[in-house]
Amino acid sequence: MSCNSPKDSKQLVNSVEEFNTAVENAQPGDVITLANGVWKDTELLFEGNGTEQNPITLTVEEKGKVFLEGSSNIRIAGSHLIVEGLVFKNGFTPTTEVISFKKDKKTVANNCRVTECVIDNFNNPERHEPDTWVAIYGKNNRIDHNHLVGKGNRGVTMIVRLNTKESQENNNRIDHNYFGPRPNLGSNGGETLRIGTSHYSMINSNTLVESNYFDRCNGEHEIISNKSFQNTYRDNVFFECTGTLTMRHGNETLVEGNVFIGNNKPSTGGIRVINGQQTVRNNYGIGLKGYRFRGAFVVMNGVPNSPINRYFQVEDAKISNNTFIDCDHIQLCAGSDAERSAVPINSSISNNIFYNEAKNDIFTVYDDIDGISFENNLLSPNIVSISETGFSSKKLDFVENEYGLRVPKNTGEGQGAVLSDKLATKENTGVSWYSKEDAEVALSSGKKISISPGLNTLFDAAKNSNPGDVIDLEAGRYTITKTIAIGHPLTITSKSNEKPQILFEKKSAITIQNGGSLSLQNLTFDGEESPDRTGNSVISTSKYSMNKNYKLFIDNCEFKNLDVNHSFDAIRTYKNTFADTISIKNSIFKTVSGNIVALDKETDDIGIYNAEYVIMKNSVFSDIGGAALRLHRGGKDESTFGPFLEMEHCTFDNVGHDKRNRYDKAISLYGVQVIDIKNNIFNNSKGIGMHLVVGEPIVAILNNNFFKTETTTITGDQKYTIENAWTFPVEFESDDYKISSNSAIKGKATDGSDLGVISQ
Amino acid sequence: MSCNSPKDSKQLVNSVEEFNTAVENAQPGDVITLANGVWKDTELLFEGNGTEQNPITLTVEEKGKVFLEGSSNIRIAGSHLIVEGLVFKNGFTPTTEVISFKKDKKTVANNCRVTECVIDNFNNPERHEPDTWVAIYGKNNRIDHNHLVGKGNRGVTMIVRLNTKESQENNNRIDHNYFGPRPNLGSNGGETLRIGTSHYSMINSNTLVESNYFDRCNGEHEIISNKSFQNTYRDNVFFECTGTLTMRHGNETLVEGNVFIGNNKPSTGGIRVINGQQTVRNNYGIGLKGYRFRGAFVVMNGVPNSPINRYFQVEDAKISNNTFIDCDHIQLCAGSDAERSAVPINSSISNNIFYNEAKNDIFTVYDDIDGISFENNLLSPNIVSISETGFSSKKLDFVENEYGLRVPKNTGEGQGAVLSDKLATKENTGVSWYSKEDAEVALSSGKKISISPGLNTLFDAAKNSNPGDVIDLEAGRYTITKTIAIGHPLTITSKSNEKPQILFEKKSAITIQNGGSLSLQNLTFDGEESPDRTGNSVISTSKYSMNKNYKLFIDNCEFKNLDVNHSFDAIRTYKNTFADTISIKNSIFKTVSGNIVALDKETDDIGIYNAEYVIMKNSVFSDIGGAALRLHRGGKDESTFGPFLEMEHCTFDNVGHDKRNRYDKAISLYGVQVIDIKNNIFNNSKGIGMHLVVGEPIVAILNNNFFKTETTTITGDQKYTIENAWTFPVEFESDDYKISSNSAIKGKATDGSDLGVISQ
Repeated sequence: MSCNSPKDSKQLVNSVEEFNTAVENAQPGDVITLANGVWKDTELLFEGNGTEQNPITLTVEEKGKVFLEGSSNIRIAGSHLIVEGLVFKNGFTPTTEVISFKKDKKTVANNCRVTECVIDNFNNPERHEPDTWVAIYGKNNRIDHNHLVGKGNRGVTMIVRLNTKESQENNNRIDHNYFGPRPNLGSNGGETLRIGTSHYSMINSNTLVESNYFDRCNGEHEIISNKSFQNTYRDNVFFECTGTLTMRHGNETLVEGNVFIGNNKPSTGGIRVINGQQTVRNNYGIGLKGYRFRGAFVVMNGVPNSPINRYFQVEDAKISNNTFIDCDHIQLCAGSDAERSAVPINSSISNNIFYNEAKNDIFTVYDDIDGISFENNLLSPNIVSISETGFSSKKLDFVENEYGLRVPKNTGEGQGAVLSDKLATKENTGVSWYSKEDAEVALSSGKKISISPGLNTLFDAAKNSNPGDVIDLEAGRYTITKTIAIGHPLTITSKSNEKPQILFEKKSAITIQNGGSLSLQNLTFDGEESPDRTGNSVISTSKYSMNKNYKLFIDNCEFKNLDVNHSFDAIRTYKNTFADTISIKNSIFKTVSGNIVALDKETDDIGIYNAEYVIMKNSVFSDIGGAALRLHRGGKDESTFGPFLEMEHCTFDNVGHDKRNRYDKAISLYGVQVIDIKNNIFNNSKGIGMHLVVGEPIVAILNNNFFKTETTTITGDQKYTIENAWTFPVEFESDDYKISSNSAIKGKATDGSDLGVISQ
Repeated sequence: MSCNSPKDSKQLVNSVEEFNTAVENAQPGDVITLANGVWKDTELLFEGNGTEQNPITLTVEEKGKVFLEGSSNIRIAGSHLIVEGLVFKNGFTPTTEVISFKKDKKTVANNCRVTECVIDNFNNPERHEPDTWVAIYGKNNRIDHNHLVGKGNRGVTMIVRLNTKESQENNNRIDHNYFGPRPNLGSNGGETLRIGTSHYSMINSNTLVESNYFDRCNGEHEIISNKSFQNTYRDNVFFECTGTLTMRHGNETLVEGNVFIGNNKPSTGGIRVINGQQTVRNNYGIGLKGYRFRGAFVVMNGVPNSPINRYFQVEDAKISNNTFIDCDHIQLCAGSDAERSAVPINSSISNNIFYNEAKNDIFTVYDDIDGISFENNLLSPNIVSISETGFSSKKLDFVENEYGLRVPKNTGEGQGAVLSDKLATKENTGVSWYSKEDAEVALSSGKKISISPGLNTLFDAAKNSNPGDVIDLEAGRYTITKTIAIGHPLTITSKSNEKPQILFEKKSAITIQNGGSLSLQNLTFDGEESPDRTGNSVISTSKYSMNKNYKLFIDNCEFKNLDVNHSFDAIRTYKNTFADTISIKNSIFKTVSGNIVALDKETDDIGIYNAEYVIMKNSVFSDIGGAALRLHRGGKDESTFGPFLEMEHCTFDNVGHDKRNRYDKAISLYGVQVIDIKNNIFNNSKGIGMHLVVGEPIVAILNNNFFKTETTTITGDQKYTIENAWTFPVEFESDDYKISSNSAIKGKATDGSDLGVISQ
């Protein structure tokens, strides 16, 4: 085809071949239009040169009706190009980028715009295979009004790259994008926006990030990772994001007019300051509960003569007119340790409001703050000031502003933030034609399916269930000869007084596949028909990568006879899977040759782990060959939050003595960040072992009775609290594992009740 | 539906619902006919009671045109039922059995017949998830003329179960089945036929196995595992099977008139005798090369007062009139060790022919053979007799018999086997309407695809290739931004004098997916564009289970700059994958931060391993941070053959010193069964480490030079040979790693050439 298209031609293209021809012939002013429908396995190269007045546009026939699926992506190269209306879903990029502002290393995009594009759960099934959704190279580009939701595999959602001269001092503008929910990755690599890398962090980027909405961007604890000079972040909103806007590398950042809404969710944070000449002004935070590096406001210590990839000292920081309402942690000199010993210098904190009537000790000062001057800051009357001057206390009245935020009435002293009218909202960001509603279905939100005992009746009901459904079992005996694979939230329960008995002939009764979550209530799982082989389990995750997090709730269940052969686990998890929550309550595990649950499959020790919250309450673990729990987070990375462990009112009787118990403990913990073990009874068991490293974990072992049980062993270099580790003789009442009157236990639980399992 | 079908009705059914109705209403003499087509996800329960004269038949509209695919299986329960013509392919059973002679534990099948059914590669994608293709329960059943080919996951192909009274003394007959090729499983659990289990091995089974054809059944070293009393194996043919007909448990077996054709393939075996009152007569073996437990003929030692799952002593064995031509290993008292110390007693070996003019020492006697009487056996003149009486030597003439087998002309002394006219053939077994041709496509058997340098030209060519194709590269630079996933045999080569250079931007350049094999010739792989992350590799297997074995050949290639970050491997393998062969010849690996290849992903230590043959010849490994090779086979299981290692004329220069080299060796071997390391040069490297356990490995470390290199360390309890471990100073000519004239190496290779790499 040798014809040249006339200027301003509008061409509807129906195939990649037609697209390529159109691109090849495109003249300034041309519009190339992708036809409605699904474009499967479509890799587009949009290369050309428009002009400022007459750009070349790639658009779609109708917005919301053109989908790039499967193995798809787009590269943009040249100048004055506009891309709009693409929707990427149901697939993932075969390269490392979905929307790329380059053809190859040498050919980038300048003066281009990507607008009103959607990338929705376009995830490599390999959780830890990294890719980037929007990779920005070149200069003077605008990325606006895009909708990016549900990145589930490793890799930053949007990156500005500075790796060649052509991409530095770029004046790129990132505005009015909707960054939708990003689940916890359980690893470094879950940032939502990064500008630069440590290697190029001494370079001016001059990128403007304004009026974007970050909605539950919870990938890791850096929501934004600034890694270059002279960037501006303003008028962005962070809604219930766990983590902070982090000035990780690079100086001369302006952070202004941003809003952080925590709604009292755990680990929600605000702003973290590192490096020199940072300005943080007029920002507003409310209900932020994160601590340490994800506090509401954090100023870090640096490393003297820091290597480029470590922490530069804070100097010349100007922190002014920010408002923090009901935030729990303001951290100064955070990270102070033998390496990070350079305290902030020549910095000022002035005209800010720190208001939290519910918490007096919101400030934590880890090192010398003489290098920070404090002036005209306002505290709620209850808060203990950290400086003799520069703070005053005053009770304030609050009103709701036009954004629905609780703000103080004018203090009259020039303190606190005044929000801009350009602030992002959920409505003015992203696109109007793609829903921002949550796609996730809640457990037990669906219909009820009642079933009777029999061969595979449970299997059939599960197979035919829909997301959120509840399968309700009559009393009786349920045999399953096939493994139940669950790919959506499902509840299995019974209202019978006698728990239904579930037997299974395959290696595993139930596997939670990608997208699945499971709630089990009032059931008995009996291993007596399980195959006489090693390595059975009642519940397992997918053997393979899950890029969606799962939940597992077990309440009022019994697991027994899991001992036909060795290494029979109650719950078995695999590498590249991640549980938001595993909760075991009011349940009994009796005669198990393997472990109850070992969450230790990330053996690379680079900060990846397998579960965020592990909860074991009011449950009995009796005659368990392996460990009741192994929870492992290896490596020195500090980008994540958990794991968190709550273990309370449990009874461990004869746990951990099998020679195959590779942990040689009843409870084995490594690198866990919050450990709360209280009011439990251990009898004739292996002990608790904890290795405490990285991240200043919060560790309390309170009011436990360890009779004929190994002493708790603690290694590592972090602090902990152990109180009331008793060793009174224990006897149990026959069946229910309540302590009998023959027991000599004299200590009480922290809540005043008995130790071990208690009535509900 | 209350209607009763008339007697002898013929009903064509089109759905499972129609099938179920037909079964429910079936009367003696009825024929239920599955309509032509694919029956997807179809689980059939064929339950009913015919009569001897009027069975109920399940058949198909046209043979070879009815396919059960996806998640499918059939259960047969009742009596006088016939199943014929089913084809299972493209799927796997969701339960543990495909064709099952029971409905549930209590309801089995008697007087039933399964005939002319096909099961073709109907494999769980999980290599080590066990299932059985034909599970026989009940009595008086016949399983005949079936075609069972390509079982790739764990689990015995056909089992006779004796677990309840209803299945014992069963008089089942298994005849004229075609057991097609079964690939090496690399683990226990790859038997083709098993009758009984150790638990029920003291019970009479009375099963007749006759006139079946076993074609390359190479799953593990027990082709047939007899585990009960009073079974008969006769007139079966074993064609190029690696392994033996093993009388593993149970007495009073009759093994008669069987033919074993080895064609001089490695590990091909014959008959293995354990337990009491075994009769082995009139069998014929030719060209069987297996040794130890898979010898042509093996009589084992037992364990005194053996536990039921160990080895019972051989007593009252009658071994007569068998013929072994050109077989390499006749093993008596095999397995003799501290535990297996009970020698054969009251046994006789008479009228047999052992003829092998090429090998004098075919007999190995591991212990006292006084309990065996020898009478009138014939040897070829060269063979060294093991007894003063009972053997005579005679040169024989041979003719080809009606089966194409080389048999001695009549010896005139009543020696040797006379074959039956009921002998199985490839033609008279299985079905006529399903091809017995090999499905596997050979490497380089397809078309040639020529390509030029550029971005993803190699990716596109590979994506569009067909099985067996050869991609031929011009000289130049090939960049790939996507991982090449290979699901069929593919050759990538170049005829250029200058090797084409391949660079890659993803974590891995090429992954071998299930079904894939790869041959690389005359190429350079350069890591300089690889992502700056840990854990890259040039070639990897699937991360997920592969139920097909793969081959990887690397010849005359260069791998360099694999060091952008740590743990960059040349080849990375994953759990649940198995290589038939990994061969590296005439190649150079230079500057690699990780390992060349670590075959150690089966960490359960239950006898599973990752590669059968590993070959490294005439290649250079220079500046390698990790190990050049880690090869691991853990556990005490004795059911398999390999791994085998040949390492010859290689040069290892500065190998293994990275602190992350977890093996702390240049070459680390564990449980390898044949180790041949000769004529290599090691310079400034970590050493060789070997742990020798299980299976009497054959280990020779000959004529190697270890300059500034750690001494070889050997642990374990097995024998080995080390000769000529020199430590002469080495210098290399600059580029090619030939030893320079400054080198002080005085030793020569076992073949008389120089040590290290040599000209081709």
